[in-house]
Amino acid sequence: MTSTAVRSRRDGLSEAATHRLSLLLRVLGGLEAVGVDTISSAGLAERLGGNAAQIRKDLAHLGEFGVRGVGYRVADLKARLGAILGLDRVRVVVIVGAGHLGQALADSKNFNGDSFRVGALFDVDGRKVGGRSRTGIPIRHAEALRESVSELGAEIGVVAVPPENAAGAALSLAQAGVRGILNFAPTVVGPFAGTTVKNVDLTLSLETLAVQLAPAAG
Amino acid sequence: MTSTAVRSRRDGLSEAATHRLSLLLRVLGGLEAVGVDTISSAGLAERLGGNAAQIRKDLAHLGEFGVRGVGYRVADLKARLGAILGLDRVRVVVIVGAGHLGQALADSKNFNGDSFRVGALFDVDGRKVGGRSRTGIPIRHAEALRESVSELGAEIGVVAVPPENAAGAALSLAQAGVRGILNFAPTVVGPFAGTTVKNVDLTLSLETLAVQLAPAAG
Repeated sequence: MTSTAVRSRRDGLSEAATHRLSLLLRVLGGLEAVGVDTISSAGLAERLGGNAAQIRKDLAHLGEFGVRGVGYRVADLKARLGAILGLDRVRVVVIVGAGHLGQALADSKNFNGDSFRVGALFDVDGRKVGGRSRTGIPIRHAEALRESVSELGAEIGVVAVPPENAAGAALSLAQAGVRGILNFAPTVVGPFAGTTVKNVDLTLSLETLAVQLAPAAG
Repeated sequence: MTSTAVRSRRDGLSEAATHRLSLLLRVLGGLEAVGVDTISSAGLAERLGGNAAQIRKDLAHLGEFGVRGVGYRVADLKARLGAILGLDRVRVVVIVGAGHLGQALADSKNFNGDSFRVGALFDVDGRKVGGRSRTGIPIRHAEALRESVSELGAEIGVVAVPPENAAGAALSLAQAGVRGILNFAPTVVGPFAGTTVKNVDLTLSLETLAVQLAPAAG
């Protein structure tokens, strides 16, 4: 598939479908690791907690059709899905804010795997600048953000500063040339031309859980 | 509305609708704070980035109907929505793991507001136990989890430990009697009878952003 075709297939994906396909990609990685060659849509559905028809529909939308009686080839599907989702190479992430949240993200397996790698943390606190996170990610001065983004080839910036500093941090990242910003501060930032912003609202996960709580015993 | 009626209305809500209503509740709080008395579904849609018909549909499902030419009464709708979502009182949260992530969550505004308050952190590291987070949340020994959950009346437990310890931490929380668990470790935990589990997958937010990245300039 040419890169133009990959992009056009990706553009038609809803956020919900992207979520499902990201999870599916991870399941496929697990299957490959244990030596599974082919799997049915029902087998995938079981591992994903979804339904087989939805999976067939998502994949058919991407031009992937299972073979009746055989299913999908795990390695092929994983490679194609990775390419379509743009997760087939490592993207460098920089994190603004070397407080607890920034350091937690910098050191997490989530942010350092097949598709992402944290290149540096940035802070203005002189006691932190020049140091490293527990796993060795360097902490640089926020003034060095622009040249670092360019030097590291960073495509994604994470905002992990207090809410009152979030707008400034996001603007600096956008001006430094990252293509996407993941904002963890509980305040809206952007929009910026040429930079996609995604707000991660940790309160929402807590609120959704609260609504779904099991009934009290009493 | 009786509490049984509240629960039955809540039970019919999809996760997507719950998300939308949580955001709506926050918008209503902002409107109330600046003295807005009534608002139309179109006005709400503008602030939520959604569409007015969806909002009217969500609210009608809950038995809330705007008045033609007037709209919704902000204070009334906020109170009703808070009751339906179970966010009209403060729930106590405990966090297992006093590393960077646990401390970031314990000190965040997200987890200490009108609906949630962090009661304690738990860890097994003797250098941390007996101390406090930056905002003063006490760090207790993990052995004290069960009695602390009971003493604090904690309803929600957060798993903020490394993936290899997540299953054990979640089991301890379930056995200690929390009604819901928010798991930040990149591994599936549970299910447990009588305890709702929600896995927060930070990789997914990064992957979704990567797929939606603005095209490269070159």
